[in-house]
Amino acid sequence: MRIALGLEYDGRAFHGWQRQPEAVSVQGALEDALSRIAGHSVQVICAGRTDAGVHACGQVVHFDTDALRPMSAWVRGVNAFLPSAMAVRWSLSVAEDFHARYDARARAYRYVLLNRSERPGLWAGRVGWHYLPLDVDAMRAAAGCLLGTHDFSAFRAAECQAKNPVRHLIRAEIHRAGKDLVIFDFVANAFLQHMVRNLVGALVSVGKGVWTIGQMREVLESCSRALSAPTFAPDGLYFLGPSYLPEWQIPEARETAGFMAL
Amino acid sequence: MRIALGLEYDGRAFHGWQRQPEAVSVQGALEDALSRIAGHSVQVICAGRTDAGVHACGQVVHFDTDALRPMSAWVRGVNAFLPSAMAVRWSLSVAEDFHARYDARARAYRYVLLNRSERPGLWAGRVGWHYLPLDVDAMRAAAGCLLGTHDFSAFRAAECQAKNPVRHLIRAEIHRAGKDLVIFDFVANAFLQHMVRNLVGALVSVGKGVWTIGQMREVLESCSRALSAPTFAPDGLYFLGPSYLPEWQIPEARETAGFMAL
Repeated sequence: MRIALGLEYDGRAFHGWQRQPEAVSVQGALEDALSRIAGHSVQVICAGRTDAGVHACGQVVHFDTDALRPMSAWVRGVNAFLPSAMAVRWSLSVAEDFHARYDARARAYRYVLLNRSERPGLWAGRVGWHYLPLDVDAMRAAAGCLLGTHDFSAFRAAECQAKNPVRHLIRAEIHRAGKDLVIFDFVANAFLQHMVRNLVGALVSVGKGVWTIGQMREVLESCSRALSAPTFAPDGLYFLGPSYLPEWQIPEARETAGFMAL
Repeated sequence: MRIALGLEYDGRAFHGWQRQPEAVSVQGALEDALSRIAGHSVQVICAGRTDAGVHACGQVVHFDTDALRPMSAWVRGVNAFLPSAMAVRWSLSVAEDFHARYDARARAYRYVLLNRSERPGLWAGRVGWHYLPLDVDAMRAAAGCLLGTHDFSAFRAAECQAKNPVRHLIRAEIHRAGKDLVIFDFVANAFLQHMVRNLVGALVSVGKGVWTIGQMREVLESCSRALSAPTFAPDGLYFLGPSYLPEWQIPEARETAGFMAL
């Protein structure tokens, strides 16, 4: 039987998604808890591997098991064995050919930037920070250049292992929330490593007046990371979740993101 | 010279406000950082002492110093010496007779309750949690009974040291945010120890249908903690800040609370 789960976590508590021998990872903690409920060793596959410090509201995973358990055991039972910084939101029995990663048609990420002169205290680890005033209209115009299908090499990490650097960016929206937050929303078919954090760095360069919108376009077209702006901190990055074809009946990220989607 | 500061912190990083010999406290960390900038030992007085695990957006403190520093040193300089979970938001030279505690005419607290069947993961330590559906209209009606001047003994901690249990509750408002949050806003001249967390416990008893609104009134009038509901976790409690007479020119809590005040 194949089961899909929706998962949220505070990225600060984990050394990234991937299981590691000596460090607490999201995958490791989840597989350990699932294995205790299943009574056998469980391996999970996720929709999007998050880096150390990156949070998730609506991560989706799948795994296979022969254990017959009430569906609630895969939520409440597993939550009893997970670290407090991680929780299963829902569980669903899915078709044997559902694949959390390959069937995801799009992924949504949100970056929350604290934009004020003083560094964060209360929200340390939960927001990125930039201390200069930002021109949101200019950033919005620059974000428009990024939409569509492009080689995003200028915004990928040096260690990114994707064979193909072409991605289709479906949505890039920016708005202010309250007096001192700037929210960046990105949706793409998939993202390269550090792509969102690099895009935020580039958009902030536009927002503070260091880059023109034309320069943003030139950097994108250069396909060269060397020309690009610094990578922003993982602290403000939230994986809202993947989207699947409706036939899979996977809950929409927007529905499960809670107040992150406000 | 007397200086006032606005302060925010993540309560999980500290063992409450009060300086302790063996534990990290808000007061201790702040006094240590201020003393390094001042070059002499600094003592601070705050508007409202918060318990362990309780957060603050707009705590106000005052202290005296002979050190002549640019005002920005009391913000950026101090922030360089504070733990990452605490930050000074603003500093202001104030009259010698300003007192952060005695001049505060009102205090505002917000309680953020996650109201869904699964426990928090991403927001662990930042929200309270109740897993049963809550009737917000009933809670709102019950909150109305609490407004005005009352002996709030039914909602004080056993170890509360206030001589007088009478408080004037100016505001008690409840609203839903997104799908799964319930926000409680309280303003009073001052609060007894654990008063907000006990009020939330009582209102949740009404919201889940265990208490009627009449019972809420009876518990208040009984002045007996024994009849009351459980104390809610500190995790969801945020001290938004105090209010002063305009002549002191202290920034309003609402202005500095950032997205907590959305």
